[in-house]
Amino acid sequence: MIGFSSYAGVMESPMNSAEEQQHSSPLATSWSKKEEPNKNQKPKGVGGFVLVHAGAGYHSESKAKEYKHVCKRACQRAVDQLKAGALAVEAVAAALVELEDSPFTNAGMGSNLNLSGEIECDASIMDGKSLQYGAVGAISGIKNPVLVANRLLSEAQKGKLSAGRIPPCFLVGLGAHEWAIGHGIPPCPSEKMATKFSLSAYKRNKRKMEVAEEMDTGRNQTKKKRLSSGKENRCLDTVGAVVVDLEGNVAAAVSSGGLAMKHPGRVGQAAHYGCGCWAENACNMNSYSTAVSTSGCGEHLIRTMLARECSAAMQSEDAHQALLEAMQNKFISSPFLASEDRVLGGVIVLRCCRCVEAQQSQNIQGILVEFLWSHTTESMCVGYMSAQDSKAKTHISRLPPGTIPGQSLAIEGGVCRLMSVAE
Amino acid sequence: MIGFSSYAGVMESPMNSAEEQQHSSPLATSWSKKEEPNKNQKPKGVGGFVLVHAGAGYHSESKAKEYKHVCKRACQRAVDQLKAGALAVEAVAAALVELEDSPFTNAGMGSNLNLSGEIECDASIMDGKSLQYGAVGAISGIKNPVLVANRLLSEAQKGKLSAGRIPPCFLVGLGAHEWAIGHGIPPCPSEKMATKFSLSAYKRNKRKMEVAEEMDTGRNQTKKKRLSSGKENRCLDTVGAVVVDLEGNVAAAVSSGGLAMKHPGRVGQAAHYGCGCWAENACNMNSYSTAVSTSGCGEHLIRTMLARECSAAMQSEDAHQALLEAMQNKFISSPFLASEDRVLGGVIVLRCCRCVEAQQSQNIQGILVEFLWSHTTESMCVGYMSAQDSKAKTHISRLPPGTIPGQSLAIEGGVCRLMSVAE
Repeated sequence: MIGFSSYAGVMESPMNSAEEQQHSSPLATSWSKKEEPNKNQKPKGVGGFVLVHAGAGYHSESKAKEYKHVCKRACQRAVDQLKAGALAVEAVAAALVELEDSPFTNAGMGSNLNLSGEIECDASIMDGKSLQYGAVGAISGIKNPVLVANRLLSEAQKGKLSAGRIPPCFLVGLGAHEWAIGHGIPPCPSEKMATKFSLSAYKRNKRKMEVAEEMDTGRNQTKKKRLSSGKENRCLDTVGAVVVDLEGNVAAAVSSGGLAMKHPGRVGQAAHYGCGCWAENACNMNSYSTAVSTSGCGEHLIRTMLARECSAAMQSEDAHQALLEAMQNKFISSPFLASEDRVLGGVIVLRCCRCVEAQQSQNIQGILVEFLWSHTTESMCVGYMSAQDSKAKTHISRLPPGTIPGQSLAIEGGVCRLMSVAE
Repeated sequence: MIGFSSYAGVMESPMNSAEEQQHSSPLATSWSKKEEPNKNQKPKGVGGFVLVHAGAGYHSESKAKEYKHVCKRACQRAVDQLKAGALAVEAVAAALVELEDSPFTNAGMGSNLNLSGEIECDASIMDGKSLQYGAVGAISGIKNPVLVANRLLSEAQKGKLSAGRIPPCFLVGLGAHEWAIGHGIPPCPSEKMATKFSLSAYKRNKRKMEVAEEMDTGRNQTKKKRLSSGKENRCLDTVGAVVVDLEGNVAAAVSSGGLAMKHPGRVGQAAHYGCGCWAENACNMNSYSTAVSTSGCGEHLIRTMLARECSAAMQSEDAHQALLEAMQNKFISSPFLASEDRVLGGVIVLRCCRCVEAQQSQNIQGILVEFLWSHTTESMCVGYMSAQDSKAKTHISRLPPGTIPGQSLAIEGGVCRLMSVAE
């Protein structure tokens, strides 16, 4: 049996403070909704909320500042879009572009190199309003893979192609690259996408593999395993975001350079429907709109379909408890990963519903947003911001000291209320 | 609202007749389990049951014989494996090889050509025992894509690669081709995989597209649509199979050349986890072992995750009713396909459980297999066989006359009992 430990931090909204909040209740078990509406908010027809992640993996203290900065910028990009009246899906794409452009994240610029020393990226995006989805897998030579996925999504919404052909929702490899160019997305030379850091990591990994394989030849399996186990979960910083706009539409996106030293052509969860991201507006069947983005070991996230599982779980009454159980039962203890010794991944989740405020004027509507993150990796870097905030908050969540990555989890979150003038 | 009609055929097992059975009860609504055990069966430690499909699409009367023949041969291949003691996953791969090798099916040899006149194939396989999964997408120059998917599955079962790297479960494009060659799967020149039929279909489709685009330029949208709507659902004959062995293990596989004139790099449901095939042995949570393989318009099957939805539905008491409802609510009327005018697809499904026979000797175990197919396309060609049969039965299922493909469905099935000596 795999051991299991959890802890919950509770953040009080409104989130109008520019300072990062202390997560002072690591052992709290209740999910507080006692927040007061922000007195300074300006009800508008535009706005919303964004939560981003810069990957579940290992974030060293020395680079913590950089990870937080990129999360902050990504939140700001999404909020700029929301304030300009963009829908959730456009705002989530904008956040992803910022995350991909950072050389510190494993997505777009600075992605992990594969076995052949090349960069191949996966990305996908889902619109909770139309339930349309677009994805690219193992695409090279494109600075922002999420923009190709987003373009696939928007092209599919236009209906059939000539001669009744159904537009694709998922393109891979060279074909995906050519489709992108054909749709006006500029190519980017691969050498410009590699960074000093990704190149040196490649060299280090290559050497590590050679040593491991030499040891393998020498049948020194024990040493090989010991050598390899230390850092294998340290390069999983796929990025993603979830957004809700003031109309209550949700969207989610994810982008990844994939595992370091992956085989060329390997596609991970970031391009896999139901695995990398999920977004579904509330409907007859579902009381809540939900959006999820995942990060971690792609194969584990694919085989457990973690994004969709977490989204489905979010229809339960207690969001915190539901995510805790989903991470425990559908991921760490999933029968689909019974043969894995360490199950590595993380998710960011939001759910929302319209809320009725008796004291409010009738033409002001409220949206209650509950947002959470959870991970089994050593750490996960997140940022979040509502359109009413002046700055994003960021946080590097870490497993409690002494717990084992892949067998334990951390879970935290907060609540935010959005206000808008009803039309 | 989309119209909906259904009909059910009931087949009585044991299926020891070499002749095809008449489906004489097109309006029957009950699911009969009144079968008697086959008196001639030889209880053994080896055996099982296979159900295959040669695609949901349009099967002309003139080619009906060919489609049935290839289904028969595919069933025989799986049964040969089962009789030799193979597990379900090996038997399902063997059936797929036969289906791929036929020039009449849209998989492997004879696959649809893409926009550039090239063949790119998708395939996946899932083992209900280990819950392992392997898939290839947009792979060229490999005669049997299912063998690459199967090899990915079996390699993943061996555990981690050197330096702790996680083995891939999904490879695409050139990388997938190279991985296959590196694992001893021989290449096949693309020109050998094209057939006279696929080449002439490509030329015809190309001309059709040109005409449609000329008309588009001339803004004659009405004529364009009329021209295009007639045949768009006639080239969807993805192939697949589901198998149960005498240990009660299930497996499923699917293989496809994809939509005709697809964009290079387009990946359809056949390579998509949860969408092309699904197999899950019974466990604490699930009373039944279930296996599903799908066919039809890949984008529709992806966005509805039809294989996994049907598998989950099969845990209900009444298999026939559950599949009917899944096809109606999770496919034809799915909110994920609300913008589609015609929802095209088909599934084959089996579920099984151990059954207790009071009259049987205690060391003889029985497995009750319920198998079904359902489709919204004009027709679907299936074959099925148990290891106790001398020959497979085949059938081309068609929508009732006057109903509209994509808005109506057909559903049929049967029951079979397998006997084995308990160890």
